[in-house]
Amino acid sequence: MEAKLNQLKTLLGEVADLGQIIALLDWDQQTYMPQGAAETRGQQLSTLSALAHEKGISPEIGKLLEELAPWAESLDRDSEEYRLITVTAKDYAKETLVPTDYVAEYSQVSTMAHQAWAEARAKSDFSLFRPHLERMLDLKKRYVSFFPPAAHPYDTLLDDFEPGMKTDDVKEIFNTLRPQQVELIQAIAARPQVDDAFMHLAYDEQKQWDFGVNVVTAFGYDWNRGRQDKSAHPFTTNFGIDDVRITTRFEKDSGASALFSTMHEAGHGMYEQGVGHIWARTPLAGGASLAVHESQSRMWENLVGRSLPFWEHFYPKLQAAFPAQLGNVGLEQYYKGINKVERSLVRVESDEATYNLHIMLRLELEIAMIEGALQVKDLPEAWNAKMRDYLGLTPPNDAKGVLQDIHWSGGMIGYFSTYALGNLISAQLWEKFRSINPDLDDQMRKGDFSALLSWLRVKIHQHGRKYEPQELVQRVTGSKIDPAPYVRYLKTKYGQIYGL
Amino acid sequence: MEAKLNQLKTLLGEVADLGQIIALLDWDQQTYMPQGAAETRGQQLSTLSALAHEKGISPEIGKLLEELAPWAESLDRDSEEYRLITVTAKDYAKETLVPTDYVAEYSQVSTMAHQAWAEARAKSDFSLFRPHLERMLDLKKRYVSFFPPAAHPYDTLLDDFEPGMKTDDVKEIFNTLRPQQVELIQAIAARPQVDDAFMHLAYDEQKQWDFGVNVVTAFGYDWNRGRQDKSAHPFTTNFGIDDVRITTRFEKDSGASALFSTMHEAGHGMYEQGVGHIWARTPLAGGASLAVHESQSRMWENLVGRSLPFWEHFYPKLQAAFPAQLGNVGLEQYYKGINKVERSLVRVESDEATYNLHIMLRLELEIAMIEGALQVKDLPEAWNAKMRDYLGLTPPNDAKGVLQDIHWSGGMIGYFSTYALGNLISAQLWEKFRSINPDLDDQMRKGDFSALLSWLRVKIHQHGRKYEPQELVQRVTGSKIDPAPYVRYLKTKYGQIYGL
Repeated sequence: MEAKLNQLKTLLGEVADLGQIIALLDWDQQTYMPQGAAETRGQQLSTLSALAHEKGISPEIGKLLEELAPWAESLDRDSEEYRLITVTAKDYAKETLVPTDYVAEYSQVSTMAHQAWAEARAKSDFSLFRPHLERMLDLKKRYVSFFPPAAHPYDTLLDDFEPGMKTDDVKEIFNTLRPQQVELIQAIAARPQVDDAFMHLAYDEQKQWDFGVNVVTAFGYDWNRGRQDKSAHPFTTNFGIDDVRITTRFEKDSGASALFSTMHEAGHGMYEQGVGHIWARTPLAGGASLAVHESQSRMWENLVGRSLPFWEHFYPKLQAAFPAQLGNVGLEQYYKGINKVERSLVRVESDEATYNLHIMLRLELEIAMIEGALQVKDLPEAWNAKMRDYLGLTPPNDAKGVLQDIHWSGGMIGYFSTYALGNLISAQLWEKFRSINPDLDDQMRKGDFSALLSWLRVKIHQHGRKYEPQELVQRVTGSKIDPAPYVRYLKTKYGQIYGL
Repeated sequence: MEAKLNQLKTLLGEVADLGQIIALLDWDQQTYMPQGAAETRGQQLSTLSALAHEKGISPEIGKLLEELAPWAESLDRDSEEYRLITVTAKDYAKETLVPTDYVAEYSQVSTMAHQAWAEARAKSDFSLFRPHLERMLDLKKRYVSFFPPAAHPYDTLLDDFEPGMKTDDVKEIFNTLRPQQVELIQAIAARPQVDDAFMHLAYDEQKQWDFGVNVVTAFGYDWNRGRQDKSAHPFTTNFGIDDVRITTRFEKDSGASALFSTMHEAGHGMYEQGVGHIWARTPLAGGASLAVHESQSRMWENLVGRSLPFWEHFYPKLQAAFPAQLGNVGLEQYYKGINKVERSLVRVESDEATYNLHIMLRLELEIAMIEGALQVKDLPEAWNAKMRDYLGLTPPNDAKGVLQDIHWSGGMIGYFSTYALGNLISAQLWEKFRSINPDLDDQMRKGDFSALLSWLRVKIHQHGRKYEPQELVQRVTGSKIDPAPYVRYLKTKYGQIYGL
């Protein structure tokens, strides 16, 4: 069996290499590729993706997995071998259950849907997107039909992003969370607003870049195995555990967006850099799920990066870099400014207190569409109704409403809830770590994040995809994903800022 | 047959895509890859190279080529189809005649030889490199044995870099050239030396970068299908005709090296950008040979970039960028300074007048080693003897002598002469173009290079690898590779500069 396992690892290693190379092609396309090369790059990606897919679903891998399965059952559930074989087998089953002609059709529909969405958003005209979303929805329903029936059809979609997560669990979590977040936001809205005018000035790009680099260096992002570049949309990618790259962007008249984006991406990046080398070139190299990934990025961006102790250390340095903009802004004022809560129409511009409501709205609409309770034609109205319910706002048009996000055009249905779950997990981990390391605030005041990172490395990062998200959170915090710590965190933080 | 040809093109397209992706992995490694990723990258390259090789020698391609061969013979010799099939068939035969275990052994030996060479050069101790070069030489002899016997065993090696070129032809060319170059250099040495002290000052890197970009933009390098980055050693690479990238480097206290290197690489780059799109994703996309490639880079670097008319246009701009360094240096003095002739020990530091002698020396030693007339143990002594003969210099040690170049450690035997042949071709093309476009100097004085580039596009670039180098040069200039124009060029230029 050892020999068969090694054979399997060799094959998986080749598939992993090809996947990493595809990621490099994509990174290059988003950072440095000259514009005229777009068609050429498409061709290269198409050739290599087909090869990688072919290698990934090769019958040779299927046969080895089948032969290894009974042996795996005899192993310790916590062993590397058991997890490698079972996680890989689950991936393999998923990849092979979907017919090749479906994959081709999906790719075609999503390309066209993406173009239609871009046009529809530009013209703020949902009718242009509607037939494409209808086709995409049909495709997603067909996708569900390839798999054994689940308790809820949405489970199958969710599982692609949050392995093992169930629709009912997410619903329950969100049902607990929603009224508490709505109540908090209403309380905040009744209080005097904080002033963040100083954020909306011109800030020198190079100085912003340097400051961001210093911050994530202090966090522990490893530049020997990483780098930062500029791109239109910030992202983190990796071509192996030892080559994890982040990107950032600068927005006009914003002193915060690049910095917090850098912290966010570094959070993702440190997770990937921390995956144990035993998982290198296997399907288990990478984060446990999108939500667990987001728990890392959000922790460094928000729980660390928008905290008062963090800025007690870094604010004098920031003031020194930007004396014209911040020379007359005190620490307290700055801290309040970067934590301003404001009900807004657009998810990506929303703050820690309102963000999850944007997610819940999308999740509920997705589930209703998959269940057939909601028709695509009625989607804009349903969107606007929920927007009024949760945030008290009515979108002036569909561009600022139902058309704002790219995800549905690419068929990413089942994805959104991971953003909110990530917030919840980040607070659970934070609470747990503080309970065993009560000096965290003092450490942050000294710019020392080593205890936090070490703990995350051991508890989360090193495991890669070994554990499913609920199992992992349970192991580390003693309970499954739970909204209570996040609510406590929000109430304490905003209670202090807004004097609730 | 049309169907078979299309089938062949599809297969060749996939092989081409993989080759381009390998080039991207290499570009990234030399420009942006974090250091810690070296091992990972090696693994990715190894997996992809094996796949590309496997695809490239697939029996399917061999069978199609065999079936298409008789049909190709019935076609016009100048047709796209005839050339595609015959050039591809020659490549395929070469790739398949070499056994796979030889390729593996070669890769292993060259990796070790490279390390040994680097150490030997650092310690200036040839004995450390000697056993590795002996093994490499044996491997090259074995390589020759895989092919049908040629007039000279060195022919087989040469053919990998200069398709169709024969050892005897190169010898004859060099035998004509050598005495004339030696004589010229002796005449120059008897004259007062020019002053180029102003070149060896500190020049701001960003200003050098900007100036170089302006120059190659004026040349016609297409930034929509290209870009420039920094690397330890300047190079040009491409991932298709529409994605051709150059790199440069800055040396301390040099106002010239980055600029001339940028012009040189842009010359290579414009060649690749000018290849006709009919050759995209086929083995014929790319330069006709290394020498023809070098004729383009040398032309833009030397015949254009070190000419007086060129600087009549650009020198005021250069002075404006570097007033402290060049404010008191007149155009004439600058022009002479960048064309200073000086006998030196090191090939890469040598000027237009002495460069070819460095090449001839290497060619003669390579041929002697392949013939068995020269033993590796006697190589340093043979090197130094020729150095005295041709340049009147004796290397103080092997690091500045026989160990100076990397090529032999990688088994690149048969490569060096292409550098000198490139110089010769550049002057042949230059003379030809001036004969039909006598206004070239005036055009350059206006910073207008469009007529020159258009002519090169039509006569050279668009053809890709359609013609072998001798055939191509003959078609364009009316004669095969000929040293006379280069000698005329050198005599005119240096006669004027040194008052001969």
